[in-house]
Amino acid sequence: MGRGGRARLAAVLVAAVLVLWAWSGTRGRAGGAVGVVRPGAPVEGRDLPLIFIGGVPRSGTTLMRAMLDAHPDVRCGQETRVVPRILQMRQHWMRSQKESVRLEQAGVSKAVLDNAIAAFCLEVIVRHGEPAPRLCNKDPLVLKMGTYVLELFPNAKFIFMVRDGRATVHSIITRKVTITGFDLTSYRQCLTKWNHAVELMYQQCKSLGPTRCLLVRYESLVLAPETTMRRVLGFLDLPWDDAVLHHERYINQPNGVALSNVERSSDQVVRPVNLDALDKWVGQIPADVRADMAELAPMLSVLGYDPWANPPRYAAARDLSPDKSPDKSAGKSPDQSHDRLPDSFAAAANDESPRAPQPP
Amino acid sequence: MGRGGRARLAAVLVAAVLVLWAWSGTRGRAGGAVGVVRPGAPVEGRDLPLIFIGGVPRSGTTLMRAMLDAHPDVRCGQETRVVPRILQMRQHWMRSQKESVRLEQAGVSKAVLDNAIAAFCLEVIVRHGEPAPRLCNKDPLVLKMGTYVLELFPNAKFIFMVRDGRATVHSIITRKVTITGFDLTSYRQCLTKWNHAVELMYQQCKSLGPTRCLLVRYESLVLAPETTMRRVLGFLDLPWDDAVLHHERYINQPNGVALSNVERSSDQVVRPVNLDALDKWVGQIPADVRADMAELAPMLSVLGYDPWANPPRYAAARDLSPDKSPDKSAGKSPDQSHDRLPDSFAAAANDESPRAPQPP
Repeated sequence: MGRGGRARLAAVLVAAVLVLWAWSGTRGRAGGAVGVVRPGAPVEGRDLPLIFIGGVPRSGTTLMRAMLDAHPDVRCGQETRVVPRILQMRQHWMRSQKESVRLEQAGVSKAVLDNAIAAFCLEVIVRHGEPAPRLCNKDPLVLKMGTYVLELFPNAKFIFMVRDGRATVHSIITRKVTITGFDLTSYRQCLTKWNHAVELMYQQCKSLGPTRCLLVRYESLVLAPETTMRRVLGFLDLPWDDAVLHHERYINQPNGVALSNVERSSDQVVRPVNLDALDKWVGQIPADVRADMAELAPMLSVLGYDPWANPPRYAAARDLSPDKSPDKSAGKSPDQSHDRLPDSFAAAANDESPRAPQPP
Repeated sequence: MGRGGRARLAAVLVAAVLVLWAWSGTRGRAGGAVGVVRPGAPVEGRDLPLIFIGGVPRSGTTLMRAMLDAHPDVRCGQETRVVPRILQMRQHWMRSQKESVRLEQAGVSKAVLDNAIAAFCLEVIVRHGEPAPRLCNKDPLVLKMGTYVLELFPNAKFIFMVRDGRATVHSIITRKVTITGFDLTSYRQCLTKWNHAVELMYQQCKSLGPTRCLLVRYESLVLAPETTMRRVLGFLDLPWDDAVLHHERYINQPNGVALSNVERSSDQVVRPVNLDALDKWVGQIPADVRADMAELAPMLSVLGYDPWANPPRYAAARDLSPDKSPDKSAGKSPDQSHDRLPDSFAAAANDESPRAPQPP
C-alpha cells in the first residue's frame, strides 16, 4: 500500500471512530437527558466476580475476610452494614403481595428494582475501600439472601463460614453481640436462633450450588489454615499467596487489612491465626440446655458437630486438598502442624458445599 | 494544506482518538476490575436537572405531575414508593451518632453513601418510565428531605404543592389514605399531623431558596391553570406548551401520563382540571375542631388560609405572571375564565416560594 493508500485508510479509520464515538454519545443520552443510566440496560459492574463472605456472626467471617484481604488481589474491607439492610428492605417489599403489585403498577418492575439495588450495593462495595482486582463483601447476613444476590451479580461467589453453634452462641453472649432476634440472656433461645439462621444460609448455599458457594468450617480454618485457604483460593480462581497465612502483618497497611475501630471482631483479628477460641464454650452452657442440644440445634448434626460431645474433637479435614503440592513455605507457618492432625471429625470429613442435607 | 498535509492531519487525529479511547478504557477499570464505578468520582447522572414534586399527600401533587407529564419534554410517572424509603432509611442512620460513627469507620463515608443513594434513586427515576429530556419524580414526602436531595442532585428543582389543610385532611379521611402517623378517625389529630408535615416541608422549601423551590397552591392550579402553569414552566426553564392544560388527553398515551391502577389519585386525575374538590370539606369538620383551628393548624395562617373562614374565598393570584402574553389558545381552555376571578386571596397574593414565614 502506497502513501496515499495509507492516508485514505487513516481517513477511513478516523471516520469510523468518529461515527462510533458519535453513536455512543447518542446512545448515552436516551431521551436527551440521561447519562450513564440507560433504560433497559443493566447497571455496569453487575458482571464483576464479587466475593461474598457470609455466615452467622461470630463464625470466623472476619478472620476469613482478613486472610483474603491479605491477598494482593483481593479487597474485602469492613462490614458495610448498609448492603444487608437494603437487601432486607427489598425482601420485605417483595413478601407483601399488595406492595409488589403497587411497585409493578408504578413501573418499578423487578428489573428496575434489581438494577437500583445492584447500583447501590456496587457503589458501596467499590467505594468504601481501596481498589483491587477482586472485590469482596463481608456482611455476614447477606448470605441469607444469597440466591437473590446471585441474580444481581451472576458472577459472584460465596464463602459460607460455619462454626460449632455452641461456640458461636457462647461468643455472641459473652461478647454481647447484638443481633436482631437473639436474646443475649438465654443460651437456649440463642441456640434456637443460631439453628434457624444457619439452616437458612445452608439452604441458600445449597441452592447456589458448589460452583458458587463453598462451605468453610471455622475449625478447619484455624486448625489447618493453609489447606483450607488453598481450597478457598482455588474455589475463587485466585493464585496462591503466602500472605493469606499472615494477615496480621497487613493490618491497616496500604492494600492490606483495613479494620474498623468499632467492629466487634477487630480486636481478635489483629492476632495471627490461633486456636484460643475453639473450646472456650465448654463448661459454660447450662446443663438443661446441653440435655436438649440435639433438639434445640439439629443443624449441629447436619453440619457434622456431635451435639453430645463437649467438645467434639475438632480436626481439620485433610482429604480436601488433593491438589496440595509439597509446600515451599513448609515450616514458615506456625500452624502447619495442624494439617497433620488425625481426621476424627468424621461427619464433617467431606468439608464441601452442602449437597444432601438431612431434613430439619 | 496539500494532500499529504491533510493525510498527516488525519493520521494525527486517528492517533489522538485511539489514545483517548485507550485511556478512557484504562480509566474505566480502576484497580483492574471496576467498570463504571470509580472510587472517588461521583455517580454519573447526579448533574441531571431533575424535578421533584412534593407536598402533603392529597394536595394536588398528582394533578401537577399529570400536567407536567403532558408536556412533551417532561416525564414524571407514577409514585415510585421506594425513593422516599431509601431516603428515610439514610436519615434514620444519620440521626444515630453511634451508627454514623460505625459507618464512617467502615469506610462508608458521607460521599460513599450519597453516591450509593443517588445511584439507587437515579436507577429508579430513569428506568421506571419512558425516557424524556426532563425527568421528574413525584413521591410527595421526598420534599421532607429536600435539602438532602439537593445535595445528591445539585441541579434539581422542587415544586411544593400546598392546599388548604382542611381540604387535605378531609380528603385523607374520606378516601382512607393511609399515611404513617395519621389517625384516620380523627380530624383533630390529622390536622395536627398536616400542620407538622407542611411546616417541615415549608422550612425545607425555604432553605432550598426561591431558585430551587417553588410553592404552588392547589387552589391556584385549578382556579387559574394557565397562569399557574406558565409560572411553573418558567421556573423549570421549560417552554410553554398548551398540552399541560389538557393532561386528560394524554392518559396512558405514549410519552403521556402513565397511571397506576392502584395509586390513590388515578381515578381523579383522568378528568380535566376542575373545581369539584375545592370546598367538599365545608360542613364536614366537627365543631370542636373548627373552634380550635388556629391553634391546631397554625400553618393555615402562615400559608394564607383564613382558619376562621369556612371556606375562605379561594381565588387565583393574578399578579404572578407579568409576562403573560395574549394567549393564542384563548377560548380553547374551559378554565381560562378562572384567571379573571377577583383576587380576594389576600394573604396568598404573593404566591411564591416562602421567604419570610411567621414563626410557628
